[in-house]
Amino acid sequence: MYYQFGKVRPHLTTRSLNPENQETPIHFISFIEPVADSIFYRRNHFPYPILTPESFTLKISGSVHYALLINYSDLLKLPSKSKRVLIECSGNKRAYFEEKVFGEQWENGAMSEGVWKGVPLKNLLEYTGIKAGVNEVVFRGRDVGVKSSQLIHYERSLPIAKALHTDVLIAYEYNGKPLSQKHGFPFRLIVPGWYGMASVKWLNEIILIKDKFTGPFQTNDYVYYYKNGTSEQVTTNHVNSTIQQPQDKQLVKSGTHEIKGIAWTGSGVVSKVEISFDKGDSWEQAKLKKIPKEHQTVSWSYPMEFKSGNEYHISVRATDNEGKTQPAEAIWNKKGYGYNAIMQITVKAE
Amino acid sequence: MYYQFGKVRPHLTTRSLNPENQETPIHFISFIEPVADSIFYRRNHFPYPILTPESFTLKISGSVHYALLINYSDLLKLPSKSKRVLIECSGNKRAYFEEKVFGEQWENGAMSEGVWKGVPLKNLLEYTGIKAGVNEVVFRGRDVGVKSSQLIHYERSLPIAKALHTDVLIAYEYNGKPLSQKHGFPFRLIVPGWYGMASVKWLNEIILIKDKFTGPFQTNDYVYYYKNGTSEQVTTNHVNSTIQQPQDKQLVKSGTHEIKGIAWTGSGVVSKVEISFDKGDSWEQAKLKKIPKEHQTVSWSYPMEFKSGNEYHISVRATDNEGKTQPAEAIWNKKGYGYNAIMQITVKAE
Repeated sequence: MYYQFGKVRPHLTTRSLNPENQETPIHFISFIEPVADSIFYRRNHFPYPILTPESFTLKISGSVHYALLINYSDLLKLPSKSKRVLIECSGNKRAYFEEKVFGEQWENGAMSEGVWKGVPLKNLLEYTGIKAGVNEVVFRGRDVGVKSSQLIHYERSLPIAKALHTDVLIAYEYNGKPLSQKHGFPFRLIVPGWYGMASVKWLNEIILIKDKFTGPFQTNDYVYYYKNGTSEQVTTNHVNSTIQQPQDKQLVKSGTHEIKGIAWTGSGVVSKVEISFDKGDSWEQAKLKKIPKEHQTVSWSYPMEFKSGNEYHISVRATDNEGKTQPAEAIWNKKGYGYNAIMQITVKAE
Repeated sequence: MYYQFGKVRPHLTTRSLNPENQETPIHFISFIEPVADSIFYRRNHFPYPILTPESFTLKISGSVHYALLINYSDLLKLPSKSKRVLIECSGNKRAYFEEKVFGEQWENGAMSEGVWKGVPLKNLLEYTGIKAGVNEVVFRGRDVGVKSSQLIHYERSLPIAKALHTDVLIAYEYNGKPLSQKHGFPFRLIVPGWYGMASVKWLNEIILIKDKFTGPFQTNDYVYYYKNGTSEQVTTNHVNSTIQQPQDKQLVKSGTHEIKGIAWTGSGVVSKVEISFDKGDSWEQAKLKKIPKEHQTVSWSYPMEFKSGNEYHISVRATDNEGKTQPAEAIWNKKGYGYNAIMQITVKAE
């Protein structure tokens, strides 16, 4: 009878519009469900590509015995695999570096997780036949733009051993539907356990090479440039965690409620999530909502009594089964990748 | 023939969902056009109210000669006024206080501006007749919730002199359309020049009183609690400005492009906007896009040559015709209202 006003809902947080870079409102979404396509974070290097007939083909060439040009409908007929995978931007949490770095100031939400369906790359490479001496596999998207005064496609490579991992997919579905246009339709490479720059969208060409690939997204961007002058390529996700509720500086209602968040790692699985109320002097274990799985976030919670008028300092850290744990301080690097310091917030009870 | 992917667009930035508090992506929107209803910032104290038949009436009572109950369709027949007005949350820019304060960490976008149409409150008060000795006018919205263990409506008062200002409106349209449900349908008080807490949404009752109104949103919230122990109510907007493009820590393309932003003030009008590239040692005037008007933002710009590899520190400050100017440091107050320090960003040219 009476009209109830529209449901409240979170929106993407805009970091830039040209190209479009928008962040998932991670404080409010549950990672127990796959992230809806509409709030999947968006990280682009160039404007969205125009969809042409050529977008619907996938070419495999270079050091192969039989070059292939597979069209969309044929690829969909090949044996497929579905896998729930987290994709995290290597610039996620960049805003938290204490000595600020230039670039999009991503907070916690440059990451999303859901179910990808596609054809294992390994199967396709077996059809083409890999020539002796192949070292890397280059993936070229259809997105194009000017970089260092040159018109280039977004392209990245994987070492051949990683490319042959059975979980690396040529995905064409997300959460049971064709990939959306903004997230790589019709094909996207999915590289579980590596930061998102490896999962090339609008994938159009795959080229096997014997040399080292030296495109700018490989040797200029997506490189950790450390303070001591050394550098190293960005590859595997670091062990990490985020408090989703409450938020930093939030005025919480007094009473008992749960502190909630997620944890994840790049290789292996999360083995524990710990919480501290004394800035790390003592740690207690948070409860994991499911048994951690490779390449997926695990939700955790910790029930806490908040007393009116009191302030609470809350720290959280994750550790994985390979013994990696979040450091007190993130390793600073010039371009601001891979931030994974222990997360710390302060809240006050009303 | 070829399909061009969907237009990119900014979304509201979520600060909390219950109640819904969402910020306008100010870095990307032009204030030359009125802000679209869908990206008007949202600041709520309680869940959205349920729309009932009583929502469509406006009751004026208390110290009046003739109490009134006006219904929606009758109010729309009264002589009306349209006015372009900025509404800014008093917590806008709270995130920038250096000694952090609790509460929603609004950045720049807890402000929006557009055209409000409605009946001047003064006219309605003339119909009812104001009794001698009236001191304040209380405005009660239909939004309800628990605060300090009591179920209360959102309500605030204005001093009678302010309530009788001809620009104070009972608005029923925004940008030529009925107010939307999330922004106060069917009636919203509009108090130009005061921070947004005064512009009560879902306005339902107006009560004239001889005493001082002491509701919690008047005497607990929306009070500047200063470090020296004194306090003062939040009323008029402070003189202020924001750089919309580029953003802090942005990697800008080399070449000449415009630094853009807005400026505004609470009473009077903006008289100048200045920009500094040497942390305030010297200032140059930015160009205003129109003649500043009371209660409206004015857009400004400054053309600048960015040279590849260089870093730029940019400061901006507005001054109004009453001689008020933005301070180097905002006046810290416990609840984090009225932040208006000179805005400073650092960018690097690629």
